[in-house]
Amino acid sequence: MPSRSTDNILYDRKLKQYVLGSRVVKRSITNIRNLRPFTQLVWVAKFSHELLLNKRTSTLRDVFYSAQAYNIQFKNQEESNNIIVDLETVLGIPREEFNIFPEERSAIFGDLTIEYTVPGYRGKRLNLSAHPDGILIGPSLLTAKIRKTSADKIIVIEKGGLFTRFIEERVHKRFNAILIQTGGQAPRTTRAFIRRLNEELKLPVYILVDGDPWGMHIAMVIISGSANAAHLRGLTTPDAEWIGITGTDILTYKLPSDPLTPTDIKRLKELQRDPRYSGKRWQKEIKAFLKHKRKSELEAFCKYGLTYIVDKYLPEKLK
Amino acid sequence: MPSRSTDNILYDRKLKQYVLGSRVVKRSITNIRNLRPFTQLVWVAKFSHELLLNKRTSTLRDVFYSAQAYNIQFKNQEESNNIIVDLETVLGIPREEFNIFPEERSAIFGDLTIEYTVPGYRGKRLNLSAHPDGILIGPSLLTAKIRKTSADKIIVIEKGGLFTRFIEERVHKRFNAILIQTGGQAPRTTRAFIRRLNEELKLPVYILVDGDPWGMHIAMVIISGSANAAHLRGLTTPDAEWIGITGTDILTYKLPSDPLTPTDIKRLKELQRDPRYSGKRWQKEIKAFLKHKRKSELEAFCKYGLTYIVDKYLPEKLK
Repeated sequence: MPSRSTDNILYDRKLKQYVLGSRVVKRSITNIRNLRPFTQLVWVAKFSHELLLNKRTSTLRDVFYSAQAYNIQFKNQEESNNIIVDLETVLGIPREEFNIFPEERSAIFGDLTIEYTVPGYRGKRLNLSAHPDGILIGPSLLTAKIRKTSADKIIVIEKGGLFTRFIEERVHKRFNAILIQTGGQAPRTTRAFIRRLNEELKLPVYILVDGDPWGMHIAMVIISGSANAAHLRGLTTPDAEWIGITGTDILTYKLPSDPLTPTDIKRLKELQRDPRYSGKRWQKEIKAFLKHKRKSELEAFCKYGLTYIVDKYLPEKLK
Repeated sequence: MPSRSTDNILYDRKLKQYVLGSRVVKRSITNIRNLRPFTQLVWVAKFSHELLLNKRTSTLRDVFYSAQAYNIQFKNQEESNNIIVDLETVLGIPREEFNIFPEERSAIFGDLTIEYTVPGYRGKRLNLSAHPDGILIGPSLLTAKIRKTSADKIIVIEKGGLFTRFIEERVHKRFNAILIQTGGQAPRTTRAFIRRLNEELKLPVYILVDGDPWGMHIAMVIISGSANAAHLRGLTTPDAEWIGITGTDILTYKLPSDPLTPTDIKRLKELQRDPRYSGKRWQKEIKAFLKHKRKSELEAFCKYGLTYIVDKYLPEKLK
């Protein structure tokens, strides 16, 4: 299988994501040192196969403990996680497709009708505006068929509080949008679902995050993924757009702000050298942050009233 | 208003929660030192009043930034949070009732029909088994009317992965239960909703958490609340029951376990002296942990297969 060591991880400008290079590692049962990881890999494959057959889902932690039922030894969860990533690499598909899901769940809201494929719900439809606190993005939603929508865009928001505000202010209707909340760094399930909506419905994706290097990177991971998913496709949305809060916005909108910490500045300098940030706009905005040395959270717009972000900022940025 | 200083926080054995004692603090506009917090309190009251009138919700962070729109000064969010707690104390109601909600959301699933009261959804009903990834517990759900259910119990689970497993294994049907996932420490909204279900539907509540002091305390906060909510009622469910993983379970079920860390042991000794843990069963289980010095996570049951926890453990504990 392709090697995942750092020197074999390359940035692909066309795919706009990290990919694995041409180096491969070979695991052979004739090599005694390979016997352990090889056996573990075969077991994880068998376990996943059973999950799929029985239509059960599982977590990384479950897999670690389940191994004990089969007398398969893992020193710790790190070792079992690593073998699961091996299986992803061999198959070239994310573990969610063999029913190993992350614990974290984010949420979605808007006029989008889906049709379930999970047992007990097969063929049932749900419109994702059914519950005004938002609909959880979990295994059932990820495996559902996308049926129809009247929306013409997707707005991704980093924070749960603002997601609720957007629903209350009827952003989904006023901007004809499907709203997605990531709750910080977007879980893989959510990134996979954003990609599906973007591909299957051809809807543009706009991302709204805090105005600091951490917010920028939440947007970037949705757009271009992370280096440790270099062996996978299908988790990125290369044409998604980071709309803000940009470094420039902090000045333009005179937002309440805090000084960047040394950690923030260090992080910005890392991003400056990161190939995913090589685009002109990213470089310009990183420089803006480094120049004024301030950061602002999305809630900072409340300075102008609770609805300013919806009434003024959003229309200007979506123009 | 009642003083919230530590020496005025007492444990009430009858209510099974912390309450405030008889000491009061007085804030007067004739005292120049009181002028600032008094003005802030009046502003927070006014701001909340507007939220309620406009049927908008908000977060602690929003309130902090919103103050700037009114030229009300808060040094930092700690100061504004504290004034919000002052308002809770004066009114004796949790801030959720004046529309200031936490960011975190947990989830619920099962045969329970609710009727919304929020704008745009008033009168609409939803059965909480509509979405098999679970229904988010947010402002809309908390303010909904509880209409009907066929369930005869509530099972609260600490972890999202297990919550999904329970839905897949149809625990809601097999045990006639409403399932609630807390995602670690239960958010206040969730604790308030558990209380409502317990009171309005008279359903018993069973809590399933990791077998360690942190899991126990997640259960305890649902049952008896926390010391810094001593000024509030309505967030606790005194007759909820912690079913496990108990210290004894770890031995009985021969669960895979890890040694307690020094921090775990320190925490257990704190709990031992905590009045909320004065009951016989709690004391016995704390001693069991301190004796075998092991802890086990809920996923540890996977050692016996993914469904053991549902097929064997749960029936035995609910007997």
